[in-house]
Amino acid sequence: MIILVRPNADPKQVENLLTLLRSKNISPNVSVGCHQTVIGCVGDVTHLDTNLIEALDVVEGVRHIQEPYKAANRLFHPDPSVIALPDGAIGGGHFAVMAGPCSVESEEQIIGIARAVKAAGANVLRGGAFKPRTSPYSFQGLGAEGLRMLSVAKKETGLPIVTELMEIKDIELFNDVDIIQIGARNMQNFNLLKEVGSYTKKPILLKRGMSSTLQELLMSAEYIMSSGNPNVILCERGIRTFETALRNTMDLGVVPVLHRLSHLPVMVDPSHATGYAHLVEPVATAATAIGADGLIIEVHNDPAHAKCDGVQSQTPETFARTMTKIKALRELVDKKIL
Amino acid sequence: MIILVRPNADPKQVENLLTLLRSKNISPNVSVGCHQTVIGCVGDVTHLDTNLIEALDVVEGVRHIQEPYKAANRLFHPDPSVIALPDGAIGGGHFAVMAGPCSVESEEQIIGIARAVKAAGANVLRGGAFKPRTSPYSFQGLGAEGLRMLSVAKKETGLPIVTELMEIKDIELFNDVDIIQIGARNMQNFNLLKEVGSYTKKPILLKRGMSSTLQELLMSAEYIMSSGNPNVILCERGIRTFETALRNTMDLGVVPVLHRLSHLPVMVDPSHATGYAHLVEPVATAATAIGADGLIIEVHNDPAHAKCDGVQSQTPETFARTMTKIKALRELVDKKIL
Amino acid sequence: MIILVRPNADPKQVENLLTLLRSKNISPNVSVGCHQTVIGCVGDVTHLDTNLIEALDVVEGVRHIQEPYKAANRLFHPDPSVIALPDGAIGGGHFAVMAGPCSVESEEQIIGIARAVKAAGANVLRGGAFKPRTSPYSFQGLGAEGLRMLSVAKKETGLPIVTELMEIKDIELFNDVDIIQIGARNMQNFNLLKEVGSYTKKPILLKRGMSSTLQELLMSAEYIMSSGNPNVILCERGIRTFETALRNTMDLGVVPVLHRLSHLPVMVDPSHATGYAHLVEPVATAATAIGADGLIIEVHNDPAHAKCDGVQSQTPETFARTMTKIKALRELVDKKIL
Amino acid sequence: MIILVRPNADPKQVENLLTLLRSKNISPNVSVGCHQTVIGCVGDVTHLDTNLIEALDVVEGVRHIQEPYKAANRLFHPDPSVIALPDGAIGGGHFAVMAGPCSVESEEQIIGIARAVKAAGANVLRGGAFKPRTSPYSFQGLGAEGLRMLSVAKKETGLPIVTELMEIKDIELFNDVDIIQIGARNMQNFNLLKEVGSYTKKPILLKRGMSSTLQELLMSAEYIMSSGNPNVILCERGIRTFETALRNTMDLGVVPVLHRLSHLPVMVDPSHATGYAHLVEPVATAATAIGADGLIIEVHNDPAHAKCDGVQSQTPETFARTMTKIKALRELVDKKIL
Repeated sequence: MIILVRPNADPKQVENLLTLLRSKNISPNVSVGCHQTVIGCVGDVTHLDTNLIEALDVVEGVRHIQEPYKAANRLFHPDPSVIALPDGAIGGGHFAVMAGPCSVESEEQIIGIARAVKAAGANVLRGGAFKPRTSPYSFQGLGAEGLRMLSVAKKETGLPIVTELMEIKDIELFNDVDIIQIGARNMQNFNLLKEVGSYTKKPILLKRGMSSTLQELLMSAEYIMSSGNPNVILCERGIRTFETALRNTMDLGVVPVLHRLSHLPVMVDPSHATGYAHLVEPVATAATAIGADGLIIEVHNDPAHAKCDGVQSQTPETFARTMTKIKALRELVDKKIL
Repeated sequence: MIILVRPNADPKQVENLLTLLRSKNISPNVSVGCHQTVIGCVGDVTHLDTNLIEALDVVEGVRHIQEPYKAANRLFHPDPSVIALPDGAIGGGHFAVMAGPCSVESEEQIIGIARAVKAAGANVLRGGAFKPRTSPYSFQGLGAEGLRMLSVAKKETGLPIVTELMEIKDIELFNDVDIIQIGARNMQNFNLLKEVGSYTKKPILLKRGMSSTLQELLMSAEYIMSSGNPNVILCERGIRTFETALRNTMDLGVVPVLHRLSHLPVMVDPSHATGYAHLVEPVATAATAIGADGLIIEVHNDPAHAKCDGVQSQTPETFARTMTKIKALRELVDKKIL
Repeated sequence: MIILVRPNADPKQVENLLTLLRSKNISPNVSVGCHQTVIGCVGDVTHLDTNLIEALDVVEGVRHIQEPYKAANRLFHPDPSVIALPDGAIGGGHFAVMAGPCSVESEEQIIGIARAVKAAGANVLRGGAFKPRTSPYSFQGLGAEGLRMLSVAKKETGLPIVTELMEIKDIELFNDVDIIQIGARNMQNFNLLKEVGSYTKKPILLKRGMSSTLQELLMSAEYIMSSGNPNVILCERGIRTFETALRNTMDLGVVPVLHRLSHLPVMVDPSHATGYAHLVEPVATAATAIGADGLIIEVHNDPAHAKCDGVQSQTPETFARTMTKIKALRELVDKKIL
Repeated sequence: MIILVRPNADPKQVENLLTLLRSKNISPNVSVGCHQTVIGCVGDVTHLDTNLIEALDVVEGVRHIQEPYKAANRLFHPDPSVIALPDGAIGGGHFAVMAGPCSVESEEQIIGIARAVKAAGANVLRGGAFKPRTSPYSFQGLGAEGLRMLSVAKKETGLPIVTELMEIKDIELFNDVDIIQIGARNMQNFNLLKEVGSYTKKPILLKRGMSSTLQELLMSAEYIMSSGNPNVILCERGIRTFETALRNTMDLGVVPVLHRLSHLPVMVDPSHATGYAHLVEPVATAATAIGADGLIIEVHNDPAHAKCDGVQSQTPETFARTMTKIKALRELVDKKIL
């Protein structure tokens, strides 16, 4: 952290600032220039509330050098995290595809889709039971009954399951769930992050908020990790911008950036990012080529009658074709060509 | 709602679509053009999940005509809502100012600030007890103890209090709270919205999410209202854009837009919107001039040592000066000059 | 400017960097910390291309302290610039309103509107002759003939005129024009900026680009000023964000920010910012309250038949009502109440 | 186009609207609902200024069905355009890579880089002679002398050249240039678009503006095409959003969208989009996987001493490695696997 001192600052107040910093175990390093005095801060500033510093009269501004997250920071954990799944793993060269319907609608539906996506090569079954919907009048998911149906599909196919948790009071229903998803709208529901982090060590799939910076995403991972659960999988799912050609703007460039900033695996959700079934395949291949550690894709046996997000759901047939392309790309990765 | 039929659509499938619409109590009105067939839908489409329609093969697209919110919609409630406060009211010509520190730090602090803001003309005391912070390492608020201190300040000064609720399990601590705030990061925590709406009829101050559209804001109000509580106060607090000159981009133009779309009162938060104390006054005056029904302003007796948001807190002296300007503007409004 | 040196940097390369800096008349000031070495740069870095520095192997990053603009910078010109208009002035307490149609359509039209806006209190007549339109199929303005009509209206009413220049080859037609507008889409047409800056000392009304930062706006002002013309008037006209409730997001908060960064006058264009006539008045009053030095408003005698931008044009009657409110606010400013 | 009539509209005014539409060769189709009357407009509305309609008292709003561009519209030109290059082609299955320095600095430099990128497989040499720079104090390019050096490099290597035109008066210097680039900042410099479109039939590389929608990009292509030059190549180069992790947000998802909307080839510029050399390769591979028709990449022999954009320039060695990956991906495309 670098502190810019206001021109003409009272030397006594500057001295008070230095004392304050030392009391926080930070060694200040003062450079006096003719127009500007600058204080370099050496030491662990992660726990320091920099707003405090910025609010002081003598301070013109603060420039951050190190990122404020620790547990998620690649600097302190140079090797990529490999997060074990019931079958396989994700991160550090391991690639996983999660697929299934936006929401669980019936036992027959979820079992049918589970079989289809397994046959096409998916590693995990996704399916929503508790659904965050913009409108109170939209279908809100089957809840506990949906979770039960997911369990049946898991037994039938052997596929582990991932589904979204919206409130900590529901977590006891999640015993059979293998990966717990925190949705984009809850990425900064800090209570939920702390609670889920201290309750379980199961992998947490943390979706980036629609307008969250990478630093905010990593700080939310930090909430989970500092509460006791290191198994966080990050997921880019599109951001909100001025452009409305797609439902969201697919921010694929952040995949290599997140890999530099953090050791955590990074997945991509091409279904929510684009909002249109015909764009899922091209975005999924691009995400694979850019180095994502996994994909989460919506697949529905009958998109036209899906209870939600039908527009963006692939059919099992299209999903199988997409998987062929993904596999061809992953072969290039495994051969170190890509 | 208008449905655009794909060129060359199979007439049987179009007939199926018409049957589907009629089954939902919607009267379809077909216009056949040489390039495009269009179906106008007359009836209450609020409860219809339009994704269903959009996913059909024969449908090229859907265009919405009416807004999907009902309870919050000015169309069905032409007069502005006036929400009673313990002392005064907000909306429909009634103006209120809420002021106080970002977070409650001590009994002495909150009583001192309460007295100062009351003397300057504030109608409600604000103060955070549960604080949503981006970093798990930042000060998270005093919790229940903070609420107790707010109650003491309320008793001392007679000012009603507004403070943020982050999780429904805490609500029993809020008995003495007069207005319950739902923060920007929880604007789409739909469970919390439903729970707070069914638990209480106290006014809810609903802050707009950092990247929420007006429609999303009104749908979140709709969650609260359709759960049983009609007393929602909307609050614009800045949106996230490419511009970083201010902490957020103050979107003042939405005040008159919200007044056309909805009958609910609209407040403005110049402290969070700008992020800098010296910008609070100019933005507060602009918000008053544009017709906001109220303001919520951060005031701290010692901003340089505030535990959070010191940079954007006014001192009691500056706040008093701002209030003088606000009052001069409100006089122009009351005289029908502005 | 502060340079962050990469951990484990080769000391020889660091020495080369210091030599490079000194060769550019910059005195480097090195602070060695245990994790990070930091070089503070004292001297005029305005002319230094910092990309050069950032590209060096030993450099981790560069943090800017001082703004890169000089002529427009308030730091070197503490008093606000007052730009003289043929009648009155703008900036430093002087307020001006420019009004008129989006485009000049006929002699009768422009004279009629000129008389109406003058009667209501406008100081300058606006009217487009060369129109930048998104579509090649839209009306592109009357060109030279439109300029001639503006001159007639000027003679008839005595109002000075402001109109947009799109290409330097047209400037000889602008002899009778008093203020030359550079449109938002040309804000970074650097050739045009240099050419207009060296050709004339008439006031230049420089509109902020739809997604330009304040720094980019001021750098564009710098192009004009460093070419020889110091008379630049900045104009905020709305930015592009995710929100589509208004045509653009009115970024009023930048008015006080620009006044701190620069000594140049700052106008606001509520017509283009909002895109709807009924929002022009509330935004115009808010802009006045927040301290803008002037307004530019579209007024049309018959908005329904305007050749462009009819939706956002006020009628002369509405404009007169708006002017009454603006004057009431400016009285508060003049009495030091606002 | 669909026109929504205001509830309670005066039937006479509605009749006037219908007459107006018919006078523009549009057949109106009226659907009367109990809450809303809707007019479907059949006919060519491309040349109609819809603002005119929207401004009428009886009109509540207008919904567009067809896109306003014609020449660039895939609807009227179902096959992809193949644009011939001196060696090879771009579009419709033909892929091209353009590479070279941000700006031409010396004959030796440009010849050396040209040889290196040709050896690695580039099809076209890029290099800036006229440079649009945010700051008037930054290096502005070598101008005519830079163009001369590009010609020498072309003679030496046989590579065709692409370079940016900033003002029409310079075009006589572009005789030896094979592809003319219109930069992002000039995407809505409509005079330049019209002039270049009527002056030459050489391929025009049109870069998307930093905050331009796809429709605006295609309307700018329409300016060039309707002026006489059908050979437009579109180029996505990153958009401006709230996210600052990369210089711009790489909007790769628009590649398949543009291919659906238009028959024109779509290139991607990973250098400007990301702003960092180490991100160029991953983004370039993702762009190839998603179906871009070409890439334009900055390569510099000595990035640390480049006169501009050194931070984002690949070295010739890195570029060669990237080309190997691109070729492996293009083989999958050619074999119909990808």
